[in-house]
Amino acid sequence: MGSNGDDNLSLDSIRQTLIGLEDTIVFSLIERSKFHLNSPAYHNASFPGFTSSFIDRFVQGVESVQAQCGRYQCPEEVPFFPNDLPPSLIRGRNRSQELPPAAASVNVNKNIWGFYLNKFLPLLAAKGDDGNYALSVSADLVCLQAISRRIHYGKYVAEVKFRSDVEGYSAAIRANDTVTLMNLLTDEKVEAMVKQRVAKKATVFGQDVTLSDTNNATDFKVDPALVSRLYDEWVIPLTKDVEVEYLLRRLD
Amino acid sequence: MGSNGDDNLSLDSIRQTLIGLEDTIVFSLIERSKFHLNSPAYHNASFPGFTSSFIDRFVQGVESVQAQCGRYQCPEEVPFFPNDLPPSLIRGRNRSQELPPAAASVNVNKNIWGFYLNKFLPLLAAKGDDGNYALSVSADLVCLQAISRRIHYGKYVAEVKFRSDVEGYSAAIRANDTVTLMNLLTDEKVEAMVKQRVAKKATVFGQDVTLSDTNNATDFKVDPALVSRLYDEWVIPLTKDVEVEYLLRRLD
Repeated sequence: MGSNGDDNLSLDSIRQTLIGLEDTIVFSLIERSKFHLNSPAYHNASFPGFTSSFIDRFVQGVESVQAQCGRYQCPEEVPFFPNDLPPSLIRGRNRSQELPPAAASVNVNKNIWGFYLNKFLPLLAAKGDDGNYALSVSADLVCLQAISRRIHYGKYVAEVKFRSDVEGYSAAIRANDTVTLMNLLTDEKVEAMVKQRVAKKATVFGQDVTLSDTNNATDFKVDPALVSRLYDEWVIPLTKDVEVEYLLRRLD
Repeated sequence: MGSNGDDNLSLDSIRQTLIGLEDTIVFSLIERSKFHLNSPAYHNASFPGFTSSFIDRFVQGVESVQAQCGRYQCPEEVPFFPNDLPPSLIRGRNRSQELPPAAASVNVNKNIWGFYLNKFLPLLAAKGDDGNYALSVSADLVCLQAISRRIHYGKYVAEVKFRSDVEGYSAAIRANDTVTLMNLLTDEKVEAMVKQRVAKKATVFGQDVTLSDTNNATDFKVDPALVSRLYDEWVIPLTKDVEVEYLLRRLD
C-alpha cells in the first residue's frame, strides 16, 4: 500500500512512509522560509480583479490540473478546494479502494489550511514583502500538501490498528466513545520520539553544508523547536482526529 | 536582486543564492527518488485522449497557472512551454527590468528538459511502475524548475562578471569569440568545489536521520556521485552556455 508501491498494509511500512514524509515536510519548510511572509498574497482584494485571495486562486488552479492528472485517486491525497474539481483524465492505479469507503469522506484540510496560514506561516517566514508571490505560494502548496499527506495517512494507521484489535475498537466505535478511541490510538512515547526526531532533522537538513569538516552549526534555516511545535500542536493532534473520524465510520 | 529580496547585484549575494539552490536541487531529487521511473507518464499516447505526453500536459497546465500568478516576471524564471502562456493577472514586483533586455531571450529549458527526462531521470529513479504518475511528474516539475532556476541564474553571474571587466568582455563579445568568453567565465577550482559540495549535501540530506547518535550512514537516498555528475555534465556546462548567450547579446 501507500505511495511507494508497497502493497503490504503493515504498521512497519506505514511507519517508513511517515518517517519519509518527515523529511519531505522539513525540506518544504526550509524552501518556504527562503521568502518573506508576503502578506498581500494571502488577503482578499489585494489584487484588482481577484475575487478571492491570490493563494486561493493559485491552489485552485494547480489542484485542477492535478485532479485531471489523477492525484486524488488515493486515500491520503485530499484537495484543499474539493468543489468543482474536474475529473481525472487518466486511469492510473486507482488506490481509492485500498481502504473501506469510510476513508474517502475524511478530510481535515480546512483545519490544515487554517492553522498553516494563520498561525504557523507567520512563525516560519520572516516579516516583510519581497514581491515573490508566485514562488511563495508555490512553496506553500508544497508544504501544505506534504503536511496534508502526512496527516491523512492516519487513515492507514487507523486501519492497521483497527485490524490488530477488532473487538476493542469495534466496541468503542459502536458506543461512539471518542475518548476511548483517542486513548487506544495514543502512544505518548512514540509521539515524544517523533517530535524529537523532526527537530533533529531540522538541524541536519537546515545547516549550511560546507566542504570544511568543522561544522558547529548553531544557526539553522528553520528553527528546530518550531518544527517540533508544528508536530506537537498540529500534525500529531490532527492525525489523531483523522484516525478517530475514520474509525467512527469504519463499521458503516 | 534575486529571489530573496536582496537588491544588491554582487557576486557574493549571487553566490549565496546559488548555494541555497544546491540545497533546493538535492531536496527535490530526494523527493523524486521516492517514486519509480513510471515510464508511461513520459511517452505520448500512453493514455487515451492525450495528444501529448502526461508530463507535457501536467507541466503546461501548472505553468499556465503560475504564469497568471506572475512567476515569469523575473529573469531567472523561465517556462518550459513558453507558447500560449496566459499573461500575468497581477502586478507584483516585476523584476524583468533588473537586467538588460538581452536577459529575456536566453532560455535553455529545451536542453534541460531533454537531459533531465532522457538521461538523468533513468539514473535517478528506480526501474518500475508504481502507478503514482501525478505525484511523480509533480516531483519532476519541482526538480526541473529548481535546476532551471539555478542554470538561468547564470544571467546574473554573467552580468556581474561583465561589469567587473567591461573592456575584456566587450572585446570578446564584439569579436563573437565564444572561446575567449568561455575561458573568461571558467574557474575550474570553483567548479571542482561545487561538485564536491553538492555530493556532500547528498550525503547529509539523504541520510536516514535517527535519534541514535551513531550514524555511520553509507546508504543515501540519492547517490552522491550522481548529484556530482548532474552538476558536472549538465548544470555547470548549461550555466556557462546561458552566460555566453547572455553576453553575446549584452551589447545589442
